[in-house]
Amino acid sequence: MEAKKRHEYAADLSSIKKAHERIKPYIHKTPVLTSESLNSISGRSLFFKCECFQKGGAFKFRGACNAVLSLDAEQAAKGVVTHSSGNHAAALSLAAKMQGIPAYIVVPKGAPKCKVDNVIRYGGKVIWSEATMSSREEVASRVLHETGSVLIHPYNDGRIISGQGTVALELLEQIQEIDTIIVPISGGGLISGVALAAKSIKPSIRIIAAEPKGADDAAQSKVAGRIITLPVANTIADGLRASLGDLTWPVVRDMVDGVVVVEDGEIIEAMRMCYEMLKVSVEPSGAIGLAAVLSTSFRSNPCWKDCKNIGIVLPGGNVDLGVLWDSLKSSE
Amino acid sequence: MEAKKRHEYAADLSSIKKAHERIKPYIHKTPVLTSESLNSISGRSLFFKCECFQKGGAFKFRGACNAVLSLDAEQAAKGVVTHSSGNHAAALSLAAKMQGIPAYIVVPKGAPKCKVDNVIRYGGKVIWSEATMSSREEVASRVLHETGSVLIHPYNDGRIISGQGTVALELLEQIQEIDTIIVPISGGGLISGVALAAKSIKPSIRIIAAEPKGADDAAQSKVAGRIITLPVANTIADGLRASLGDLTWPVVRDMVDGVVVVEDGEIIEAMRMCYEMLKVSVEPSGAIGLAAVLSTSFRSNPCWKDCKNIGIVLPGGNVDLGVLWDSLKSSE
Repeated sequence: MEAKKRHEYAADLSSIKKAHERIKPYIHKTPVLTSESLNSISGRSLFFKCECFQKGGAFKFRGACNAVLSLDAEQAAKGVVTHSSGNHAAALSLAAKMQGIPAYIVVPKGAPKCKVDNVIRYGGKVIWSEATMSSREEVASRVLHETGSVLIHPYNDGRIISGQGTVALELLEQIQEIDTIIVPISGGGLISGVALAAKSIKPSIRIIAAEPKGADDAAQSKVAGRIITLPVANTIADGLRASLGDLTWPVVRDMVDGVVVVEDGEIIEAMRMCYEMLKVSVEPSGAIGLAAVLSTSFRSNPCWKDCKNIGIVLPGGNVDLGVLWDSLKSSE
Repeated sequence: MEAKKRHEYAADLSSIKKAHERIKPYIHKTPVLTSESLNSISGRSLFFKCECFQKGGAFKFRGACNAVLSLDAEQAAKGVVTHSSGNHAAALSLAAKMQGIPAYIVVPKGAPKCKVDNVIRYGGKVIWSEATMSSREEVASRVLHETGSVLIHPYNDGRIISGQGTVALELLEQIQEIDTIIVPISGGGLISGVALAAKSIKPSIRIIAAEPKGADDAAQSKVAGRIITLPVANTIADGLRASLGDLTWPVVRDMVDGVVVVEDGEIIEAMRMCYEMLKVSVEPSGAIGLAAVLSTSFRSNPCWKDCKNIGIVLPGGNVDLGVLWDSLKSSE
């Protein structure tokens, strides 16, 4: 039964290892940082896996790179398409550029300028849509039809999940004593890859998701036993507003040991600590893992009492300093 | 002649290697980060040696740790003393704490609270003085007399210079192709150590100092051929306001190939780039190396045309987010 279940997932240790071989020459092996001050505050040993230093500024490049390199020559020649205004769009543009193939990026009107600029800087071809999901999908499907390009979903795709899982391969090689990994959850691509890799390598490891209160669909889904989507997400962590997909949900359902839900105020305080103690510039989505480990709900939960050596994935992302500062000020 | 000259310096490759052996178990081997965006903007390959991730948040821990570990048991038992309100004070407190010996830190009234807090957090014993240098020295000498402790100067000390030089040992081991290292200059401890180590290992390497216009005493000293001290330093880069010492000056005079002087506006713009592109949180003193490599005076100087693979030391330091933001805003 267990073996059968595993085969139903969109990725496994073997696909993740293959992804790693494929993307290794192109990605950064990101460093793991520690801070004695944060260890002392949290009462645990924390190991920050700094995907903010990944190419393109986020872990997203791992999955995008794996997806692009997995295409056969004929597919690749026609290019790739996605609808996203976030880090996946920039990562896919960069991965496509490296292979010399086109990346068509459907961007909803009103997307933050800095993110659109990143797509353009990395050579992505921007195609505008209305802001609604239906318009985004409609425009993407028109582009697919006209160009013959391949859709690369930001997370609900086995190639993406395998690529993101390489974070765990590296982390467990860098710090063998890790007993817990905390991963931000949104669409679930990162945590699925990390869980599949880490639990295969070290079955005793705990995988904990960190999620903002205003977008706690993963926590609700775990309780309900099925994918719950929220009508509206309301959190400062703009990178964590997506819903689980049908490929990521089974992994989250079976392999994620718990979801720690944190308030926006806790995220902002953790951002400040990342700047001041870890010296790393993160967006709100990046600070949520630290916020989780410092939260009362984590600290007071007897299930997590034995989590001593905790890997925290800093997913990275692109900081708008103005937005950051407004958040910090508003929390004072 | 050359050989004789070398022996006059306060440190050499051998003392730096010994320092490295001594401090290795206690320091972080800091990562080297790269950014293709910054490479593209600068037209060179840049390698950022991130001492901001060093223990205590700055390279200063290397020198402080070497100084403390160099004491014999009898000296050590009586403790160490310094007068500094900056990162050296915190680093010395931390190094002393690790060895279980007292650190007496003479702090001038009006020193930034966050820096005093760091000293206290690391267990340093704060002794207040007036803000003048004469009061600082007087109080320090009284503490020396009363406690029998050893004075550890922030930069004009061979043990400190040897410790700081370990930055170059690591960097040249991490990135062999480096042909140039840019180092912020203030009292000259870091650049002296780096120059002595790097030029011994790779004689062709260029060592370039980066200095703010409002505190360009090193640039003026190089022109004059003797130590020039400025009556007042006027720059946002508060970590770069010290003057050269009689142990650092000979190294700066003989081994530093040039001083690039930058305006505060250029430093602020470089800070912004460190945050947005490198994802590293730096103080103004930390961003000056990047500012130098992007400055017109560097780019247009034919002497530096062949500098292709440039190591930039990010010295680290403790960021006050409020001050940071005010600087960024005022530059808009």
